[in-house]
Amino acid sequence: MEKERHSDNAVLLMHCPDQKGIIAIITEFINTNGGNILYLDQYVDRVNGIFYMRVEWDLAQFAIPKEKISEYFDTLYARRLSMEYSLSFTSRRQRMAIFVSKMSHCLYDLLARYTAGDWDVEIPLIVSNHPDLKHVGEQFGIPFEVIPVTKENKAEMEAREFELLERYGIDFVVLARYMQVLSEDFIARYPNRIINIHHSFLPAFVGAKPYHAAFERGVKLIGASSHYVTAQLDAGPIIEQDIVRITHRDTIADLVHKGRDLEKIVLSRAVEKHIQRKILTYHNKTIVFA
Amino acid sequence: MEKERHSDNAVLLMHCPDQKGIIAIITEFINTNGGNILYLDQYVDRVNGIFYMRVEWDLAQFAIPKEKISEYFDTLYARRLSMEYSLSFTSRRQRMAIFVSKMSHCLYDLLARYTAGDWDVEIPLIVSNHPDLKHVGEQFGIPFEVIPVTKENKAEMEAREFELLERYGIDFVVLARYMQVLSEDFIARYPNRIINIHHSFLPAFVGAKPYHAAFERGVKLIGASSHYVTAQLDAGPIIEQDIVRITHRDTIADLVHKGRDLEKIVLSRAVEKHIQRKILTYHNKTIVFA
Amino acid sequence: MEKERHSDNAVLLMHCPDQKGIIAIITEFINTNGGNILYLDQYVDRVNGIFYMRVEWDLAQFAIPKEKISEYFDTLYARRLSMEYSLSFTSRRQRMAIFVSKMSHCLYDLLARYTAGDWDVEIPLIVSNHPDLKHVGEQFGIPFEVIPVTKENKAEMEAREFELLERYGIDFVVLARYMQVLSEDFIARYPNRIINIHHSFLPAFVGAKPYHAAFERGVKLIGASSHYVTAQLDAGPIIEQDIVRITHRDTIADLVHKGRDLEKIVLSRAVEKHIQRKILTYHNKTIVFA
Amino acid sequence: MEKERHSDNAVLLMHCPDQKGIIAIITEFINTNGGNILYLDQYVDRVNGIFYMRVEWDLAQFAIPKEKISEYFDTLYARRLSMEYSLSFTSRRQRMAIFVSKMSHCLYDLLARYTAGDWDVEIPLIVSNHPDLKHVGEQFGIPFEVIPVTKENKAEMEAREFELLERYGIDFVVLARYMQVLSEDFIARYPNRIINIHHSFLPAFVGAKPYHAAFERGVKLIGASSHYVTAQLDAGPIIEQDIVRITHRDTIADLVHKGRDLEKIVLSRAVEKHIQRKILTYHNKTIVFA
Repeated sequence: MEKERHSDNAVLLMHCPDQKGIIAIITEFINTNGGNILYLDQYVDRVNGIFYMRVEWDLAQFAIPKEKISEYFDTLYARRLSMEYSLSFTSRRQRMAIFVSKMSHCLYDLLARYTAGDWDVEIPLIVSNHPDLKHVGEQFGIPFEVIPVTKENKAEMEAREFELLERYGIDFVVLARYMQVLSEDFIARYPNRIINIHHSFLPAFVGAKPYHAAFERGVKLIGASSHYVTAQLDAGPIIEQDIVRITHRDTIADLVHKGRDLEKIVLSRAVEKHIQRKILTYHNKTIVFA
Repeated sequence: MEKERHSDNAVLLMHCPDQKGIIAIITEFINTNGGNILYLDQYVDRVNGIFYMRVEWDLAQFAIPKEKISEYFDTLYARRLSMEYSLSFTSRRQRMAIFVSKMSHCLYDLLARYTAGDWDVEIPLIVSNHPDLKHVGEQFGIPFEVIPVTKENKAEMEAREFELLERYGIDFVVLARYMQVLSEDFIARYPNRIINIHHSFLPAFVGAKPYHAAFERGVKLIGASSHYVTAQLDAGPIIEQDIVRITHRDTIADLVHKGRDLEKIVLSRAVEKHIQRKILTYHNKTIVFA
Repeated sequence: MEKERHSDNAVLLMHCPDQKGIIAIITEFINTNGGNILYLDQYVDRVNGIFYMRVEWDLAQFAIPKEKISEYFDTLYARRLSMEYSLSFTSRRQRMAIFVSKMSHCLYDLLARYTAGDWDVEIPLIVSNHPDLKHVGEQFGIPFEVIPVTKENKAEMEAREFELLERYGIDFVVLARYMQVLSEDFIARYPNRIINIHHSFLPAFVGAKPYHAAFERGVKLIGASSHYVTAQLDAGPIIEQDIVRITHRDTIADLVHKGRDLEKIVLSRAVEKHIQRKILTYHNKTIVFA
Repeated sequence: MEKERHSDNAVLLMHCPDQKGIIAIITEFINTNGGNILYLDQYVDRVNGIFYMRVEWDLAQFAIPKEKISEYFDTLYARRLSMEYSLSFTSRRQRMAIFVSKMSHCLYDLLARYTAGDWDVEIPLIVSNHPDLKHVGEQFGIPFEVIPVTKENKAEMEAREFELLERYGIDFVVLARYMQVLSEDFIARYPNRIINIHHSFLPAFVGAKPYHAAFERGVKLIGASSHYVTAQLDAGPIIEQDIVRITHRDTIADLVHKGRDLEKIVLSRAVEKHIQRKILTYHNKTIVFA
């Protein structure tokens, strides 16, 4: 972690139709040009015949200038192998905005990690539809913008949000128990770049009040799921899930209470993987590299 | 466990409208009459105002004859407190039938525990809609009856099953990956006495092929749920659930493979609680005492 | 939770030699005098013949004045039953001090819960042997006292700590990754009132650098354990433990990173149970009521 | 899984000093000669500078004859890269012996999987120091040899065991709760080919009666650990571990009871990875590929 922050590595996330020798071709390209591979993980979806890979290499001795890598890679391999890929550099810190409503547990968990320097990310902006958590923004010295979205004014308010996201140069958005449904337009602007935490074991208990529904059904475990937001509610690619055991003694208030720890840990795990550029999506699923 | 098998204890499972002093009344009754309480666990549903309790006591020095306890209890307390209860004695071994289809993992797990003497139960009968696992019945010396149920002949075949359950004096039925839906008539005859294992984290993925559905949805955990069978498919009171972590690398075949361990453990935990008379049901939920 | 904060309940934690009728006697006492029992959980250690119980009842209609309950209880039952007990009232908020060193994850987790009002507790004081986390105290408006303990000046520095704990009326101390061993004298002043988090699955890896030791041994799970501090290092009564899975890919830095989430959750669970007065200790073990 | 059983794949497990281009070299070798890579997973121990890899490829179109692969590989790469490797073929089923004493739960679990065809392995032999489980051998039609080892006759009895292992062509041995310590001589004959299950969370509670020790210490979780047997008791490379939650209510008998499920699952997971040739050992640790 320490290293990533102070050195400059290239991270290639790619997928293409499966074919012989892809690993050999890519690693050969990196090695020949003086790159030292620090990480390589790949996965072959044999059912659909697709090859996925994440490679990270040290640029210190790399012969190709940083700004030319993409062009070379494109010309030499990407087109030939019908590859889709993204190339990023660890020297550039991603910028993350947090959207919250009234509950603080996920927000504190994210900010505590950020403040401790656990994550290679910038958090320059918190947005909320309520003023309740303004003091948390102040505690951490982060601009806290109240945008009181309602069903009626959503288009207008989202326009203000876009303007903020633009102004702060935000790369991705984390919905930390943000109790508003985003418009399709909003979602379309940030494909696979809005991470939500839903307080159920998806696909069980989609929508509002999942703890009430879980209580009604009498389940013995409750869950939380973090996922990328798509146009369909709570139906986007799942990044991480976990559960905690409950018993007949637990009231709905107990579920809410126990669920909080789950929500914050599950959301933070997902955000961390996103920051580390270790997530690929396909067919509404995620590949999360180790 | 050892003791239960060789001594004679009374087990009272009860619920009634919550009111002051119930524990005092019941424990007083047992103590005054020379019963030694070995186990007491209670739970108050404050939302609905219902009191639930399980008490187990040693009958060795109990002043009231075994066959009279119920009558006395009824007269003295049950009516007065509007109590519903069941009284049973650990000296009487319950008799359990196992229904299977073609998969053996749950069946072996149940029989291995039975043969090792882990459980205070008799298993005199295995029923299957296929002959595939007949050899398992032979291995363990347990009658294995093939009843080839189909949608067309269900009524007739279930009549044969009733006759078998009757003949073998069966108290409760365990569906150990039995791939047939029971008729409402069948279920009505064994209320809270048919335990099923469903290979998903209910209420997600009700019905057929849950592993396929889980794979499609891209979940990060798969689950198994044991529940009492009711007229509505996979919607009965849940007794026990657990999950196992999966990754994008897992194919449907891997889910099926990983799920097997889950299914057998979750089913066996539920069956054990049932054998120990530690389950109460209410409003389509279970209270499972420790 | 909400209720506990706004109403006044009595909490009785007790143990005595096991004997017939204890539950009946105690519940009778509470009922007869107009107390409404909100919680009762008991446990019998049959090996050592000891009976343990926690009872909580509403004082609103209780006939015996609050300040007299202990006297009455003592005279009527405690001596007769050779009982040891503690009686407390939920109307009185306990006061907790946090001791930290340089790592902030446990501290933030505790303060986030406190600030959100999750816990019925006061946190008026943070003590540290380093100034590094002073800003966290400032963020949350809590006095942060730097007491630079070393082996050489321990007696003197602990005297300052005692003075602080006294001045702030502290009931119990939470060591939130505090990297100093307390003196026997210190520990003796707060029996079962100092909660530590040790970053291993105790009793494995006692002492310093448990993640290094875990890495060396090649374990597949790492753990964290919260316990009451006793004179013997990392050997006090365990309150809560949990684990997280690791693989051969994880470096020591990864274990430290993964361990942080574990440490904070395990510590907070223990602190919560302590605040709820749900922990009894005996023979260097804990009974943690549900 | 199905495929592995019916097709012929080569499995290469290797490690060598880390150096640029190893993956490229090996995958190039396989691809150029017509091999279709089905599985590739690698791991770099950056602290010690060692590269580890598992590659599996389909031999159907492979240009080099099976019996020559090792020679070619040796000449072309292994010496040059200072590589240690093992090459095996999935067409050859490994042969496994099970050693047991008096407890049947692990034995049944292994045999149930074997009988169901879950594992690509042969189990032609069960050895025990007691006759108690002879009926299980008979149930499954597997020779069950009683070798009544004691401290006094160990050398002589182990000689009989060697003869049996030889005669049955055994590749590896599974100690399924076998309550005898093997001699160093025995262990030396089967390096990384004897898998044990220890009923604790190693390195806690090494040696005899770990559940008693866990009970004494008052832990809140109990564990089980499967490991390769080495000369030092319970100190060999750990393959798999897991835990289950316990409470103050659990007696030693309850720990033994709850531990059984853990032991059998943890042992079977380890045996499965061994059968799949997915385990590499180094410095008394294991690399377990996904």
